[in-house]
Amino acid sequence: MTRLRLDIAYDGTDFSGWARQPDQRTVQETLELAIATVLRLDALPQLTVAGRTDAGVHATGQVAHVDLAEPVDPDLLVRRLAGVVPPDLVVTSVSLAPDGFDARFAASGRHYRYRVADRAVDPLRRNDTLSWKRPLDVAAMRRAGQGLLGEHNFAAYCKPREGATTVRTLRSLTVSRDAASVVVVEMHADAFCHNQVRSMVGALLAVGDGRRPPEWPAAVLAAGVRDSAVTVAPPHGLTLVAVDYPPD
Amino acid sequence: MTRLRLDIAYDGTDFSGWARQPDQRTVQETLELAIATVLRLDALPQLTVAGRTDAGVHATGQVAHVDLAEPVDPDLLVRRLAGVVPPDLVVTSVSLAPDGFDARFAASGRHYRYRVADRAVDPLRRNDTLSWKRPLDVAAMRRAGQGLLGEHNFAAYCKPREGATTVRTLRSLTVSRDAASVVVVEMHADAFCHNQVRSMVGALLAVGDGRRPPEWPAAVLAAGVRDSAVTVAPPHGLTLVAVDYPPD
Repeated sequence: MTRLRLDIAYDGTDFSGWARQPDQRTVQETLELAIATVLRLDALPQLTVAGRTDAGVHATGQVAHVDLAEPVDPDLLVRRLAGVVPPDLVVTSVSLAPDGFDARFAASGRHYRYRVADRAVDPLRRNDTLSWKRPLDVAAMRRAGQGLLGEHNFAAYCKPREGATTVRTLRSLTVSRDAASVVVVEMHADAFCHNQVRSMVGALLAVGDGRRPPEWPAAVLAAGVRDSAVTVAPPHGLTLVAVDYPPD
Repeated sequence: MTRLRLDIAYDGTDFSGWARQPDQRTVQETLELAIATVLRLDALPQLTVAGRTDAGVHATGQVAHVDLAEPVDPDLLVRRLAGVVPPDLVVTSVSLAPDGFDARFAASGRHYRYRVADRAVDPLRRNDTLSWKRPLDVAAMRRAGQGLLGEHNFAAYCKPREGATTVRTLRSLTVSRDAASVVVVEMHADAFCHNQVRSMVGALLAVGDGRRPPEWPAAVLAAGVRDSAVTVAPPHGLTLVAVDYPPD
């Protein structure tokens, strides 16, 4: 058996998220079909992924693995996949997985980025930038973000999923404006529970436009229960940028 | 009469360029219709533009002017236009034009950017990034670009247009890799003749992938006639980034 690591990028706009669902166009199914096609497999291979992104969420650095019965040349596979995947999906590299590699369970960190424009959105970036009507105070958002760092039970920011822990370690949270003045929120944690990044961004936006004080997101965290005043930011501003693995 | 300056951005993918043409979706007609709609004009206003971009070329910093019989509030106009233009077109600002302002004839400089990826293209940037199959030598492209700087008759890089001069001053040409390793060519000149940026990029790509030596683009320039070995790079990598005007 050969285990391959796939590094993947996609524009999530026209996908119903990563995970296979009946009658939906998903990244998982599109990619499993592409692999089956180029390798002429009788059955669909099963991909295991680092981050099960929701509908509309993008990725530049998603990672998955697949087990194949027969050895394949990784470089040949990446070239042949390029010929069959649709333009909103790219397999950026394929490599032989090191011993013990598991795209999901060996991942030690996930990096996400959220883009919000509080002035006109560049039409070339409208797929991955949220438009916000009120001006955002980046310094206040940054202060609010500091209150969320560290290991916590993030239940207040999680959509419950059976059996999944909500204790996570948020290693960094930065808020800045890029060269085009777009507000960019970047978060790094061991892992994120379902909806966590978008809920935290929703709380930061309430601080940024002055509806809530900078202390509020940490107070919600401490309360430990979902707060109806926290809105889940829309998916299209969010991109999974990178996944960390321990050195081989 | 009131002259307004409009700053405009667009994703050129689904436009047949700036200039109005029968039965084509153009930026000019789309915007003239939008202005007529929100101001309830009886006739379409006439826009004058700094850079008549070709089909498929984008803009983040296009500038146009329009003359209106009645005074209008520029801030109100920009907000009302936001409600009627399609998502691939944004009017980023409207302002009263200073005395003597003419979007085309007062423009003293144009800045263009061309993006080429010699590895997998980020699917989120596939609309404004050319994919190149061979690795590009940025240092060689940079050297080649230096040979094109200054005032020259750029006829070798121009598609002839009746009555238009081909003498232009190329003030800067930079070639670099951005954080995502995309090769970015930036050019600044008083003005560019038709096809000039894309033809010069085509020549630089021939140097970048080793088909031609770094001295070749300057030799073509000196020869003064179009060289069939110079290919015109595809439009979708090109963006009009900014237009310069003298201080008021």
